[in-house]
Amino acid sequence: MQKGKASVVFDHPPLICGAASIAGKKEGEGPLGRLFDVVEQEDMLGQKNWEAAESCLQEKAAKLAIEKAGLKPGDIRYLFAGDLLGQLIATSFGLMELEIPLFGLYGACSTMGEAMSLAAMCVDGGYGDRCLAVVSSHFATAEKQFRFPLGYGNQRASSTTWTATGAGAVAIESERFLEEAGRGAPPLARISSITTGKVVDFGLKDSSNMGAAMAPAAFHTIWQHFQDLERDEKDYDKIITGDLGTVGQTILIDLLAKEGYDLSQVHMDCGIELYDSESQDTHAGGSGCGCSAITLCAYILPKLKDGTWKRVLFVPTGALHSTVSYNEGQSVPGIAHGVVLEHL
Amino acid sequence: MQKGKASVVFDHPPLICGAASIAGKKEGEGPLGRLFDVVEQEDMLGQKNWEAAESCLQEKAAKLAIEKAGLKPGDIRYLFAGDLLGQLIATSFGLMELEIPLFGLYGACSTMGEAMSLAAMCVDGGYGDRCLAVVSSHFATAEKQFRFPLGYGNQRASSTTWTATGAGAVAIESERFLEEAGRGAPPLARISSITTGKVVDFGLKDSSNMGAAMAPAAFHTIWQHFQDLERDEKDYDKIITGDLGTVGQTILIDLLAKEGYDLSQVHMDCGIELYDSESQDTHAGGSGCGCSAITLCAYILPKLKDGTWKRVLFVPTGALHSTVSYNEGQSVPGIAHGVVLEHL
Repeated sequence: MQKGKASVVFDHPPLICGAASIAGKKEGEGPLGRLFDVVEQEDMLGQKNWEAAESCLQEKAAKLAIEKAGLKPGDIRYLFAGDLLGQLIATSFGLMELEIPLFGLYGACSTMGEAMSLAAMCVDGGYGDRCLAVVSSHFATAEKQFRFPLGYGNQRASSTTWTATGAGAVAIESERFLEEAGRGAPPLARISSITTGKVVDFGLKDSSNMGAAMAPAAFHTIWQHFQDLERDEKDYDKIITGDLGTVGQTILIDLLAKEGYDLSQVHMDCGIELYDSESQDTHAGGSGCGCSAITLCAYILPKLKDGTWKRVLFVPTGALHSTVSYNEGQSVPGIAHGVVLEHL
Repeated sequence: MQKGKASVVFDHPPLICGAASIAGKKEGEGPLGRLFDVVEQEDMLGQKNWEAAESCLQEKAAKLAIEKAGLKPGDIRYLFAGDLLGQLIATSFGLMELEIPLFGLYGACSTMGEAMSLAAMCVDGGYGDRCLAVVSSHFATAEKQFRFPLGYGNQRASSTTWTATGAGAVAIESERFLEEAGRGAPPLARISSITTGKVVDFGLKDSSNMGAAMAPAAFHTIWQHFQDLERDEKDYDKIITGDLGTVGQTILIDLLAKEGYDLSQVHMDCGIELYDSESQDTHAGGSGCGCSAITLCAYILPKLKDGTWKRVLFVPTGALHSTVSYNEGQSVPGIAHGVVLEHL
């Protein structure tokens, strides 16, 4: 059901029936390390190049999420998937073997929110009883594409975030399978509503400060969500952004405070949780599609499953950064997609 | 309603209530030239660079489609949009001003099919009464990204296709607006079903022969569509692929012939229609997201509207080509998304 300007409340909230997180070595050494399903000990994953390694992460995450849901690849009707790379090569090569119809998505680091939103619509609408949302990022492919060759050893600004190496996948299915006996573990959470973001540009031109570029988009999506659903921060146990990092978090909290919302107690950012910035030298935090996706699968969904949190607003955030537009003098706009997750 | 393995038949087929085609100069000089809404006489569109020009094409197409549907931007609930460029910069900068929630999509040149499929699900499911599907491509941005600098003047193989400069947009809305009096022109067509493609890789490694790379994907989607809906080529007035060109067309017809389907009379390819290959030096045909999109808006939809064609299977085709994966020795897989369009 359409709600307000940019939100949908699901009549039959789709269930997350399986989730998988495949993390890189550095992510495995961080505060969430022991929660991931798999921690790769070698970031090349035995492949010939970084891009193939990222494809491998995505394939592993997809297969494991399907398996943990007690399903087979053939049970999944549609894939909603993406990554940060030009032409989504991590996705197209990573998921090809599954032979499942694919909707390729690009929402920068917000792609997990976009994928879950569309998959939830698809399941609730009866177009696909079981869908998979899967995204990935890899530190080395992202640095190569967006910044400097790794061997160059450039110095990173303190506002820089560290692109997470990892892939996350969630299997989303219709609630009418809830009663189906003896299959897999019980569902982790339900998706009760979504709020879809628009492109928001505050004119920021510092490619080392993606947190500041995304914060206005996160602000807009959260603010719009509150208006559309007539809610505020007190209706949530946590409001969790994707990868604003410490710089973006401050801006987000300030922007919402001006509108009368106090997120200081309820806000969490996956980018801040993923690393120990002191000991891991990650500066402002983690980023990349994989950052929010593996944090969701390894940390957020288990807390929803065990009831620690009853209702969470998950808002992956994306900086629409391209070296081409950036070098042509354009700013870096942002986008953020909100997904409400609830304890069953 | 789910049908077969990869198709959806809509219970309340969404309507295409407005369509707009903005074409480049060369496209305007081709056989379809006089059908386009706008033919730009200067491919830079007064912008500072090619990417900004492509954004401009997309913005014009979006606004004109909304206007022709008798709507205002604020009436559109979601944008489903994409282009060929890394991080979809033509889309994010082109559509930003509309301030409409955006689902960014990447399906290479098949993106119009992907966008229309998701928009149709969204409308039929009641998540957005009015949505816009919009895509673009630009010869100069694509050459710069995928091939050689224009100034280099490289020689093109005869199997090469010419990336179309153009943007197409269709406004899709719920059939319950059909009765609404006095607004815009009558709808152009209805979207009765969709068939979503998977990534298909035949191991082709010739980046000058995208038609051959895409033909197996087009074959698979059309074949799957026939199985899912228990139909064959005789159920369609036209089966229209996006940009296989002359090389890909031959392969497609051969592949389907082996399965017992004779597409020789019913097949049309937007890439073949768009240019006069003899006089325009375009070799195997046109390509790019814009190729199928402007042909749809300017040529296919009017024929559906006036009843020349009663039912068309529109199958934009995409080659998942990336210079990064290609230079690493990977093949070029394809994907194709089918949309059934019917006369009202």
